[in-house]
Amino acid sequence: MSMLLGYLGPRGTFSEEAAIKYSQQAGGNLDLREYPAIDQIMEALCKKEIGQGIVPLENSLEGSINITLDLLASSREIFIYQEIICPVTHHLVAAPGMEVSDIKELYSHPQVFSQCRAFINQNLPQVKKIPWHSTAAAALMVSWPLGRAAIVSRRAAGIYKLKMLASHIQDNNGNKTRFVVLGREDHKITGEDKTSLVFSIKDGAGSLYSVLGVFARRGINLTRIESRPARKSLGDYIFFIDLEGHCQDHRIKEAMCELEDQVVFKKMLGSYPRGGHGDDYNL
Amino acid sequence: MSMLLGYLGPRGTFSEEAAIKYSQQAGGNLDLREYPAIDQIMEALCKKEIGQGIVPLENSLEGSINITLDLLASSREIFIYQEIICPVTHHLVAAPGMEVSDIKELYSHPQVFSQCRAFINQNLPQVKKIPWHSTAAAALMVSWPLGRAAIVSRRAAGIYKLKMLASHIQDNNGNKTRFVVLGREDHKITGEDKTSLVFSIKDGAGSLYSVLGVFARRGINLTRIESRPARKSLGDYIFFIDLEGHCQDHRIKEAMCELEDQVVFKKMLGSYPRGGHGDDYNL
Repeated sequence: MSMLLGYLGPRGTFSEEAAIKYSQQAGGNLDLREYPAIDQIMEALCKKEIGQGIVPLENSLEGSINITLDLLASSREIFIYQEIICPVTHHLVAAPGMEVSDIKELYSHPQVFSQCRAFINQNLPQVKKIPWHSTAAAALMVSWPLGRAAIVSRRAAGIYKLKMLASHIQDNNGNKTRFVVLGREDHKITGEDKTSLVFSIKDGAGSLYSVLGVFARRGINLTRIESRPARKSLGDYIFFIDLEGHCQDHRIKEAMCELEDQVVFKKMLGSYPRGGHGDDYNL
Repeated sequence: MSMLLGYLGPRGTFSEEAAIKYSQQAGGNLDLREYPAIDQIMEALCKKEIGQGIVPLENSLEGSINITLDLLASSREIFIYQEIICPVTHHLVAAPGMEVSDIKELYSHPQVFSQCRAFINQNLPQVKKIPWHSTAAAALMVSWPLGRAAIVSRRAAGIYKLKMLASHIQDNNGNKTRFVVLGREDHKITGEDKTSLVFSIKDGAGSLYSVLGVFARRGINLTRIESRPARKSLGDYIFFIDLEGHCQDHRIKEAMCELEDQVVFKKMLGSYPRGGHGDDYNL
């Protein structure tokens, strides 16, 4: 029986690309269902309308990380099951028959214009840039040869049957988006795992240092750390940390016990296989 | 003589609100100049077209933090001179003559829909939601009474002469955006200062712990920490840290010297007065 996987639409976004990549990894027995917002994917998962959902966690383009993290931190039923890392590449497309010299207007997400600045300055200096709310929506705007072009993902170009005028026009080839597959349970141990957790600590110089000591003393590598003020109670700070290992590993279990006395609140967000080998670093 | 302050347009965005707030704090002798992108503000500052620029650093709405941080980290000439913290509030507006019951279509940034979800579900469940690339652009779409409404900032409502149908419709009243005023030098010591810095460390368990010890041992409070993979060289991780105090303080100077041996790269991003008293916490 196939399982439903919720993803952030519309079709042709990087989120759909990540959903397809994950579906292929999982053997293709997933049916994709589009949702208009991240919170609706989480809700569908809690209500068991879908078996899993895929959402962006760190995204240089959409800036949606805060929503995902906040929802993950506040949910008791949802865990990270897998991570999927996708490169972010941009392509110049237009309706069939169009050439670069025909372009009068260029549609894309405002941040995409920034990410393709060198190409635009060199090749399309006089073209009017029209900011659009997503690259997939921009692709829809250029289906007819009216002097319009768009900067979109490779997949959107295919879906909307657009002509590729220039590929890989991004300034920086290192841009990646990290997606997470959410489910109602952890992934089983694979031996190459990561664990995400969130916690808050009491106000005071050195309290973060003391918490990090819990991991450093056990040789547990951290691969990411982010702090953010807690929205609800003043005086608290929330930390999101990724570390190497699975929550069932002995030394991580031990660290979690020791952490208990030092934090105001903590929640395991899930243990899952490392997605991009060579993409992580040890802090 | 008045000084030019660059800000991220268009008019009616939270960035313009922050620019006005700063201009008032500075005694009103600033002329505002709109720029379409953050990198263009930085460039104008380097070329001395403007005296200062104001850009979002942590923004729950636009997700532009990465661009600002990356540009700050790579520039040798630009420093944070001041921080300005603005609450994020959302308001339902339409053309004069419109009532809530006339609304057929609702325009706003996709993340604003998420941030006003409870209000929309309760009051506008049947209305078609049309994602737009900015709240200021959404305000422009509803100037005529065609059954359209928008969710925008209070300032955009005033600029575009729209009727306020409901105010403060955001789910969460704790949302804030932190802007930074950029200049070509640090702010002088006020006694209530913060210092931002960026550094990268070598791969290895506990290396972040060791760096934080440099601050913890001197009782220097950290108010923010964020890690991100360095885009250029593999094996490095970049940290953005805010701490209490001014770079001319003795113990911060001392800490910076000790840090020298532990980091691959470091850059002071500026020392400036604390913007929002009670908004920071000590890590």
